[in-house]
Amino acid sequence: MDVRRLVEAKARAAREAAQALALCPTRTKNEALGQMARGLEEKAAALVEANRADLARARAAGVTPAFLDRLTLTEARIEEMASGLRQIAALPDPVGALVESWRRPNGLEISRVRVPLGVIGFIYESRPNVTADAAGLCVKSGNAVILRGGSEAIESNAMIAAVLGKGLEKAGAPADAIQFVDTTDRQAVAVLLELSDLVDLIIPRGGEEFVRWVAEHSRVPVLKHDRGVVHVFVDADADLEMATAIVMNAKVQRPSVCNALETLLVHRDVAPRFLPAAAARLSEAGVELRGCPRTLALVPGARPATPEDWDTEYLDLILAIRVVDDLDEAIRHIRRHGSGLAEAIVTNTLAHARRFTRAIDAAVVLVNASTRFVDGNQFGMGAEMGISTSRVHARGPVGVQELTTIKFVVQGDGQVRE
Amino acid sequence: MDVRRLVEAKARAAREAAQALALCPTRTKNEALGQMARGLEEKAAALVEANRADLARARAAGVTPAFLDRLTLTEARIEEMASGLRQIAALPDPVGALVESWRRPNGLEISRVRVPLGVIGFIYESRPNVTADAAGLCVKSGNAVILRGGSEAIESNAMIAAVLGKGLEKAGAPADAIQFVDTTDRQAVAVLLELSDLVDLIIPRGGEEFVRWVAEHSRVPVLKHDRGVVHVFVDADADLEMATAIVMNAKVQRPSVCNALETLLVHRDVAPRFLPAAAARLSEAGVELRGCPRTLALVPGARPATPEDWDTEYLDLILAIRVVDDLDEAIRHIRRHGSGLAEAIVTNTLAHARRFTRAIDAAVVLVNASTRFVDGNQFGMGAEMGISTSRVHARGPVGVQELTTIKFVVQGDGQVRE
Repeated sequence: MDVRRLVEAKARAAREAAQALALCPTRTKNEALGQMARGLEEKAAALVEANRADLARARAAGVTPAFLDRLTLTEARIEEMASGLRQIAALPDPVGALVESWRRPNGLEISRVRVPLGVIGFIYESRPNVTADAAGLCVKSGNAVILRGGSEAIESNAMIAAVLGKGLEKAGAPADAIQFVDTTDRQAVAVLLELSDLVDLIIPRGGEEFVRWVAEHSRVPVLKHDRGVVHVFVDADADLEMATAIVMNAKVQRPSVCNALETLLVHRDVAPRFLPAAAARLSEAGVELRGCPRTLALVPGARPATPEDWDTEYLDLILAIRVVDDLDEAIRHIRRHGSGLAEAIVTNTLAHARRFTRAIDAAVVLVNASTRFVDGNQFGMGAEMGISTSRVHARGPVGVQELTTIKFVVQGDGQVRE
Repeated sequence: MDVRRLVEAKARAAREAAQALALCPTRTKNEALGQMARGLEEKAAALVEANRADLARARAAGVTPAFLDRLTLTEARIEEMASGLRQIAALPDPVGALVESWRRPNGLEISRVRVPLGVIGFIYESRPNVTADAAGLCVKSGNAVILRGGSEAIESNAMIAAVLGKGLEKAGAPADAIQFVDTTDRQAVAVLLELSDLVDLIIPRGGEEFVRWVAEHSRVPVLKHDRGVVHVFVDADADLEMATAIVMNAKVQRPSVCNALETLLVHRDVAPRFLPAAAARLSEAGVELRGCPRTLALVPGARPATPEDWDTEYLDLILAIRVVDDLDEAIRHIRRHGSGLAEAIVTNTLAHARRFTRAIDAAVVLVNASTRFVDGNQFGMGAEMGISTSRVHARGPVGVQELTTIKFVVQGDGQVRE
């Protein structure tokens, strides 16, 4: 079958299943999530076996050890996937929730009620556990999903998706609600992006360039998950112990993720007291420092930052540092170089906290907290499809609620318009 | 200046102004709306004069009298535009509203706060009053707007936009927040749709084919406002007086709008008692009837409906009628032919009302009420940019709240992630 027909057939099956899944009661969806979890546990040995084929191909292609690690499925990781599905089952069902309701002077009752989006196309990178998370979030929110994972994990993902579909079936939910695009043909993505009559939302996760390409070529609405050029601004009167702890946590705890710190901005009045000690801590932790001239004067070990550094998402143990004159200069820097994901201020001045949170236009603005908290689970919203940097539909962590839309329900007693 | 540079320059100016407008207090925005209203009133004579040039061109092009009427500006219509702006000023400001807020076990306080979308590109048809409504809604919601009206109204729209911009200035708000694309070159729309770095949302209003073209070609997210193939299902036990009143109102009161009725579905058990009398009332009101075979047997004056009729948005005094076996067949018909805008049931059976509202996937589902209520003002949401048939971001009437996005604000006391 050619790629176009393959992808279209899957999308059509998903569309049909979506109608049925949208009407499934919460109990059925939770039972399905439980069956999906049990299925993964029961098939753990076979999944590890399928994963071996992916690993062998990856090794032959000479990928990095870090990549190989992310690709690897172990019994423990499969148990984590199952446990993730059970956690999703425990979340409240967003479908059917009454968002608001009011009565009009003529007696009409207007309600806004949550309903599933329909069919979601999810395009993601290599880690196979993402397959189970994404499918689980879509099932819980009543959406069918078309999964298109990285080609390196295709054997693992195909088997995971098959096991999950069986789980749906066992619970009496439509197995077709989980579709997996089982081809490594790159054309498949382009076809998926054209199917605006069959797919309601595309969620791409991956490199910045890829996400941008998807957003520009898709005829289906796209929820972008792209880069995080994340700043922390240390204000003149910041508690320096707090500032150091937040900077260390934001930069070092997990540098490879989008909510990790990339550029540190420091008020010039506090820089001499703050920077030398903070830089020493960072260097100790293996962080390479790149600074503006004023930073270099205080931190001789740092390398000079180039203009590109201010726009770079390192995703690594590298930190750019700039000394700024005041809050205004920090805001201007962030407006110019920030990617709109997460921005933080460390301050004790209430007026500065208020000004920063109003003036900075990002999905998440933080005061006196680490940017590493920018995460659905950390926010208490449950698991997430990613962190949206789109402005429309959903901004920030995309959990089950963000995978719904609303429907107006109007109830009357025969009212007509004058 | 070529079209690309023209549109880009306007978008850049809008982007800059949007940043300032987003931070304007409610008082400034309301003062601006008042100044915009006063400006229209003061320039009424000049506006009527500019409108004459549009009317002369339209007459020479041989447009219909209805088109000419929609294009015409009178002192009374200008007063209506001014009054519309004052009504928008009286709406609550959506910006800064706290959507929800909660505290995490570690003491972090998470809030979701409404903020403007940024820059909105609004592409619309001929009636010049839409220019003032759209600009007013965008100003109130803190967004800059790039207006691209129908070329037939370009002189009228250009002057309205200029007057509105002056109003912003007088209130100390950025005049550049209202941009008008003052060229009839069709290329301007294509350029606007490419500017994904400068424009945050495109709202197209117009014919179905045009809206679809925009949605398929835009690199900027699109909120669709397309067609309404609207159904009313009269159930077996419907109150027939109520059903007749709703059908008459939905079809006849204003047939040229998207929430008007296009296809009437009637339960076979009630058809013999309902259809002949209802058809007589409709015919009296000048409605042409097109029916399925069972309808024709009861309404001999009707013409046979063709398969195309079930998918047609007449926007005119024409009604397609089909007799169905039961609620399930009505639901199947609507799923197949409905456009997802508005669908209504007239029934006395609670279980049927519940099933219909759950099974029908439309922006608005109505029980025992006329579909003509599907309108922002009628819902109590204030004026609207249109009725969205998109599933993402906003569905149904798009008022000031729907022109915003959210920002997470996280407040802590130095928390870091474990």
